[in-house]
Amino acid sequence: MSESLTRLLDGCRNGHSLPGGLYRDPEVYEKEIRAIFLKSWLCVGHQSQIPQRGDYFLFEMAGESVIIVRESEDRINALLNVCRHRGSRLCDTATGHESRLVCRYHGWTYGLDGSLRAASRMSDGFDRSLYGLHRLQLRVFAGLIFINFDPSPVPFDPIENDLAAPLAPYQLDRAKVAHRQNYPIASNWKLAVENYCECYHCAPAHPEYSVGHGRAIPGDELATLLAPVMARAAAAGLTEESYVRNSWLAAGALGTDRGYKRYALLRGHKTGSRDGSPLAPFLGTIKDYDGGATDLHFGPMMFGLAYCDHVVLYRFTPRGPRNTDCEITWLVNGSAAEGKDYDLAELTWLWDVTTVADKQIIERNQAGVDSRFYRPGPLSPMEEFTGLFLQWYVATMRAAG
Amino acid sequence: MSESLTRLLDGCRNGHSLPGGLYRDPEVYEKEIRAIFLKSWLCVGHQSQIPQRGDYFLFEMAGESVIIVRESEDRINALLNVCRHRGSRLCDTATGHESRLVCRYHGWTYGLDGSLRAASRMSDGFDRSLYGLHRLQLRVFAGLIFINFDPSPVPFDPIENDLAAPLAPYQLDRAKVAHRQNYPIASNWKLAVENYCECYHCAPAHPEYSVGHGRAIPGDELATLLAPVMARAAAAGLTEESYVRNSWLAAGALGTDRGYKRYALLRGHKTGSRDGSPLAPFLGTIKDYDGGATDLHFGPMMFGLAYCDHVVLYRFTPRGPRNTDCEITWLVNGSAAEGKDYDLAELTWLWDVTTVADKQIIERNQAGVDSRFYRPGPLSPMEEFTGLFLQWYVATMRAAG
Amino acid sequence: MSESLTRLLDGCRNGHSLPGGLYRDPEVYEKEIRAIFLKSWLCVGHQSQIPQRGDYFLFEMAGESVIIVRESEDRINALLNVCRHRGSRLCDTATGHESRLVCRYHGWTYGLDGSLRAASRMSDGFDRSLYGLHRLQLRVFAGLIFINFDPSPVPFDPIENDLAAPLAPYQLDRAKVAHRQNYPIASNWKLAVENYCECYHCAPAHPEYSVGHGRAIPGDELATLLAPVMARAAAAGLTEESYVRNSWLAAGALGTDRGYKRYALLRGHKTGSRDGSPLAPFLGTIKDYDGGATDLHFGPMMFGLAYCDHVVLYRFTPRGPRNTDCEITWLVNGSAAEGKDYDLAELTWLWDVTTVADKQIIERNQAGVDSRFYRPGPLSPMEEFTGLFLQWYVATMRAAG
Repeated sequence: MSESLTRLLDGCRNGHSLPGGLYRDPEVYEKEIRAIFLKSWLCVGHQSQIPQRGDYFLFEMAGESVIIVRESEDRINALLNVCRHRGSRLCDTATGHESRLVCRYHGWTYGLDGSLRAASRMSDGFDRSLYGLHRLQLRVFAGLIFINFDPSPVPFDPIENDLAAPLAPYQLDRAKVAHRQNYPIASNWKLAVENYCECYHCAPAHPEYSVGHGRAIPGDELATLLAPVMARAAAAGLTEESYVRNSWLAAGALGTDRGYKRYALLRGHKTGSRDGSPLAPFLGTIKDYDGGATDLHFGPMMFGLAYCDHVVLYRFTPRGPRNTDCEITWLVNGSAAEGKDYDLAELTWLWDVTTVADKQIIERNQAGVDSRFYRPGPLSPMEEFTGLFLQWYVATMRAAG
Repeated sequence: MSESLTRLLDGCRNGHSLPGGLYRDPEVYEKEIRAIFLKSWLCVGHQSQIPQRGDYFLFEMAGESVIIVRESEDRINALLNVCRHRGSRLCDTATGHESRLVCRYHGWTYGLDGSLRAASRMSDGFDRSLYGLHRLQLRVFAGLIFINFDPSPVPFDPIENDLAAPLAPYQLDRAKVAHRQNYPIASNWKLAVENYCECYHCAPAHPEYSVGHGRAIPGDELATLLAPVMARAAAAGLTEESYVRNSWLAAGALGTDRGYKRYALLRGHKTGSRDGSPLAPFLGTIKDYDGGATDLHFGPMMFGLAYCDHVVLYRFTPRGPRNTDCEITWLVNGSAAEGKDYDLAELTWLWDVTTVADKQIIERNQAGVDSRFYRPGPLSPMEEFTGLFLQWYVATMRAAG
Repeated sequence: MSESLTRLLDGCRNGHSLPGGLYRDPEVYEKEIRAIFLKSWLCVGHQSQIPQRGDYFLFEMAGESVIIVRESEDRINALLNVCRHRGSRLCDTATGHESRLVCRYHGWTYGLDGSLRAASRMSDGFDRSLYGLHRLQLRVFAGLIFINFDPSPVPFDPIENDLAAPLAPYQLDRAKVAHRQNYPIASNWKLAVENYCECYHCAPAHPEYSVGHGRAIPGDELATLLAPVMARAAAAGLTEESYVRNSWLAAGALGTDRGYKRYALLRGHKTGSRDGSPLAPFLGTIKDYDGGATDLHFGPMMFGLAYCDHVVLYRFTPRGPRNTDCEITWLVNGSAAEGKDYDLAELTWLWDVTTVADKQIIERNQAGVDSRFYRPGPLSPMEEFTGLFLQWYVATMRAAG
């Protein structure tokens, strides 16, 4: 560990924001990529994005590019987008379809499993079997595609074991992507996650969200509001699971963070819409609006919000020490038709307006912590989950050595 | 001191420009910010910019942002624009009006004196009095607002003591800002100050200025020209002070540089206008054009030029190792009305055309000193004041250790 | 040598592309500039670009700017574009004409030989003879202007001795520049040179070139194709030289790389045009199309392709660790008139379309080698010359210590 990172970590206090250097130092950032992002399970998309053999999309993070390609009906592969000859990128476009992956530099040709099938005019002793594309670990759960850059990754099963039951009624494997939108944020990734993890800012900053969502309400009152929601759960077709939270330090192993946490909607809102009225057909086997919503957490950088009629996923992806992408994916019932069963502008309204506001908030935060006179400040009890994230961060970086 | 800074300073010769590394190295730059800019008295504006309680403007320098806000008729505060909670910037816009300073992230609310007035839902033991905004030292002199980032700053009194008498007739505290214009220069701050400090370049580069201003004329001849100006001073309502120059090394303490130096206008010019004719009502108690102009110097980065009918202030602000802002402020008599008593285009013409030319000159200088083959060259006697600046710079950086 | 450069060089294997760090590290780049570019003979242009006394053009590379100016009919000088006073650039524009070189900052005035002729108002002891512009080594050969930043450069004679005879029939000293075009490539310079040095990629990437040029054909077959070309050489007015290749390690001294290598055109093509038909009058003393073309190599960064009716020169210039310019110059017979003897769009078509394609290929290569998981891959026998370049690169950097 470099001397400056050690010194910065030594300056961290529980229950406080981090020292400023941790939000900008390029060496700290590179260490984070290696210690956290290249070792965690990362949710990169939904299987419905690549329905046909040969369909692919790219996942790009911190200078890495990965081709997520369907090889067959029941097999999806994650292949490093780097030719084994002289290192050219194979695919340029965010999505596409290829029956084989051909490098446009020298024509080296790979199968959809990454194996090298053709490389013209190499020396006689050249053994193609040694030059397949670098393949990453991949798991599909609830229709979501997870990858891990680590060849000996932490187990994925804890995520699946904990979340399979509560997510079952949503049948996310039969959902479809209604829309994806990227919001580039000019900030360090941790400021974006800190923002996502607390609702202390919801009342002052997000009136559109706060009017209908009970997450910003302190503990005791929240429990009172949640009780009638849980009483309606079974009738609505949901499980009686209200809380699965093995995230941050509780996850046990790095990058296996997972969470499912119910809370009440307010003022009769049924879902995350402009006025609380329904937006789309029910997901999966859900039969009714139960008056609740559910926070989701899959791995360290993918969060979500499940309503009865749609799911919103938030993925934070580091692009540099001061640049982070927040990509939002809206999932609806796979058989719903746009324009008929749902209106896309209405479906995406709440989380677009909220994320545009958060982008500005987070960028203002980065500008402030860049001051030489900024000192870490104390968290409110309402920022408990952000506090846990920061504790996890410090412990993880220390453990990485 | 880092080894490379020591080596670069060891390579400096009196009477020569600096080694190239001092004009670009990011570590040298950061050291300069801490050793010079965060310890000096910096002129940030004029009190007339914030006439009402709650009026504020931002001063931004090298990643720092400071709110200069009027708390009351006789009190102006300089508050770090960083919330004490998680470090968000409070204010975004260059100027504004607020009765309280509210962080738009979590609603923490500060008084105009920086004290924390409200922070909702913090733990019981939370002591608001510990979390006021970071407040900087501030002094107002001649209507000009000076701040110092250092909590135990060098004394300001020497500036006031030396300049109060000669500036009195101008009544700058009753002046108003007629216009402000920023000229971003893609160069190190020292190249901009070197340029400002000498008039060896005026004849070849600034015909608009040279036609009417005697500053480019060597010593003996200049004294001859100045004599009749000084003879008219008392009648014109000016003091008989012709020279106060405690700047650079002579200032005694870092950042207390100050200067007042009279020189003659040429060819019957009365002021710094296109053809030398008057531009605006007399400032303060001045009664006539005496045929002279006055160079001003307040702190290491604020220079000025006082005519009988207006004052032009030049502030150099570092933005990065290769970026400097030159902001010009034109001050006129506080009771003068634009369009009636002065024409803004005419008022600003001379120093706009001159600064646009200097920007190009300075950027060309940066490009040249970036060459690996550039070697510091010898100064002309006409660049004496630039030479003193460079001596001061080297001594200051050495003393910072 | 820094530890990281040593480690990166230790990771190089013959017959493979380089470790990723060598394609992006700023310290490695700076070392390369000093060890290779500032010590090699660099071809900067053609004498016909500056026919009159006082005509000049700028050569810019890696932050350096050099004025290539004609002093007299038989003398061209290379002067550092940095004033000896305080380091300002003297000339801004890419080309121009000046009878003297006057610094627009303080008016210091230099002759076309770089000597300081005037510097007003300097101290009495000032000795102008010590402050001439820094002058670089310069040689003109075959109308091409070569410079060397090293004051004691490696000998130029080997280049001239080897290439004078085979180039004689082209009379390049009587040629003229028909067009120059710059193609900025967002990649390290080595990826651009690697690309230029091999034709393994021509078949998949350059159909416009491959249809008429035999360079992409493996050795034995190529020899068969070349035989009838060489049989026609004397009748066409060309020498019987088919191969001079003292390049890369074989050059003996750094930066004296040179090469002349004939190959066959295919399908009856006479020159590098859209359909193989002639483009311009014959160069020099050439009398007929012999069915061949010639690869040229002058110093480490200038390559070329000589046809019977025009020559195309490719200059690669580093702009930063990840930025390289590829400038193409088209030379034709000096007495040919545009629009009458040649059509500019047709003349430039082939190498414009090919270079636009290469730019994209090379940038894709940079993106790939930036992956933390990229590993150097094996070269094909068709990439032999690229392999030699990489061997030379590693040996040169090791030798630089």
